[in-house]
Amino acid sequence: MVPLRIYRHLIPQLAAAARSLSAPKVAASASCAPRPISPLPALAMAAYGTGACADSKLLFRQLFEKESSTYTYLLADVGDPEKPAVLIDPVDRTVDRDLNLIKELGLKLIYAMNTHVHADHVTGTGLIKTKLPGAKSVISKASGAKADHSVEHGDKIYFGKLFLEVRATPGHTAGCVTYVTGDSPDQPSPRMAFTGDALIIRACGRTDFQGGSSDQLYQSVHSQIFSLPKDTLLYPAHDYKGFTVTTVEEEVAYNARLSRDKETFKTIMENLNLSYPKMIDVAVPANMVCGFQDPPSKV
Amino acid sequence: MVPLRIYRHLIPQLAAAARSLSAPKVAASASCAPRPISPLPALAMAAYGTGACADSKLLFRQLFEKESSTYTYLLADVGDPEKPAVLIDPVDRTVDRDLNLIKELGLKLIYAMNTHVHADHVTGTGLIKTKLPGAKSVISKASGAKADHSVEHGDKIYFGKLFLEVRATPGHTAGCVTYVTGDSPDQPSPRMAFTGDALIIRACGRTDFQGGSSDQLYQSVHSQIFSLPKDTLLYPAHDYKGFTVTTVEEEVAYNARLSRDKETFKTIMENLNLSYPKMIDVAVPANMVCGFQDPPSKV
Repeated sequence: MVPLRIYRHLIPQLAAAARSLSAPKVAASASCAPRPISPLPALAMAAYGTGACADSKLLFRQLFEKESSTYTYLLADVGDPEKPAVLIDPVDRTVDRDLNLIKELGLKLIYAMNTHVHADHVTGTGLIKTKLPGAKSVISKASGAKADHSVEHGDKIYFGKLFLEVRATPGHTAGCVTYVTGDSPDQPSPRMAFTGDALIIRACGRTDFQGGSSDQLYQSVHSQIFSLPKDTLLYPAHDYKGFTVTTVEEEVAYNARLSRDKETFKTIMENLNLSYPKMIDVAVPANMVCGFQDPPSKV
Repeated sequence: MVPLRIYRHLIPQLAAAARSLSAPKVAASASCAPRPISPLPALAMAAYGTGACADSKLLFRQLFEKESSTYTYLLADVGDPEKPAVLIDPVDRTVDRDLNLIKELGLKLIYAMNTHVHADHVTGTGLIKTKLPGAKSVISKASGAKADHSVEHGDKIYFGKLFLEVRATPGHTAGCVTYVTGDSPDQPSPRMAFTGDALIIRACGRTDFQGGSSDQLYQSVHSQIFSLPKDTLLYPAHDYKGFTVTTVEEEVAYNARLSRDKETFKTIMENLNLSYPKMIDVAVPANMVCGFQDPPSKV
């Protein structure tokens, strides 16, 4: 078991760094021009309460990037005065949208995290670090990719009093992880798991590139995701049919691949006959350095 | 004030009708073929608890149709043994997806509802009624469209112990309504409003067709939507930028059109210079009869 590494101690420094940034101003000369952004001072927009602990409160937003059908997830503890936030699987093309929303909501982005080295789009992490130097990149150590924080199975990633637990779920790639909300009365209920491509709704990511293994993926999903409480909300990195969320209970019953026995699953995965990923030769090298690891000024 | 009309009394009959339908079977001959659907017996997949009243519990799903960028919403009371459900703004192209999900989740669809006569896609209501004769169509009386139930401002539409309140929000079309969850301890918290095209995230529907009026839309949104509690979750009929949800508080602050004064809003709406809607000549006539009002066998 890898020892826990808690990033919570970093938050005060990160929050101070974020505060020190001068917010860019938006022009408002004409009557129809966009108005300047004044972050909401007393925001009450959480979709989830967290039960017993009134001073931690999850704000949650699911965001979609159409070209690669990628979901990006924004989570923040709006019970914390600093409103510390994380973004999971940001896409380069939608970074401006995401950062504008974060600014409007008055959040402090501390981590831009990836579930794995994506092959179908370039991560937004590098751009985010350029535009918001206080934010740090996070990816699994097993991915081999460069990032500010390389996380391992069992790590907890704190934002305010809320945290995400890291679960190693290799199989789509060798470095895939699932980020899962905590299991205590002051954490979101029901639990939420951000599964990347390990599990997508009624399906899963392919296993024929990037150290993929159908045997390993089956084991990962059954031991690390299907073992969560049945009402756990599962949020994948992609959806191609217009679904937004599923649950452990649903996927155990209806996942067209992962609900089968292991041998059937492996047969299915070996016979997908998928074409070579269009973006892989661009996306993977870029994502191995989190889009680009260092802001251009340092290159 | 239009008197309340409560549809709750219809539920036992509708539930009985739904029970009497023989569920179509799915073939499962080959090992890799889709498995038959056995609806989950003891479903625990609600994203929202409803607080004080343990026997009403909202299941909520947001579904997306890419071609018209339409959101369809599924709501069910899974605290009720019958799991009565409603679909808001279903699209013809995604009816099979939606009905399959409803079947998997073991829900009884009682109402297929529209917020208005859409100009950009054909509603799924007609197809749903063909495939699931127990389901009834719902639209506003002011729309002039045919439906099983023509609702008016102030009506409550019950599914189990949960209900949606009808609020007239004309301006995009003359018959637009917003469906809002109830305001009592046994209803979802925070409240949720399904705004159709009256309000979309940071914007609104056009006002130059179908009895549209910018003056009326401004009045509708400010009196019927912005007056809701600031943490009310707003779910629009469309989004073109990958957002999934907003709140009253956010839109009051940041809606690029509706947060302005009325005269500025009207100037913005008069100068949008939008092209003629591609689908309007097909969609509106079809949607005036809810896709098609009667199942083909009766035509």
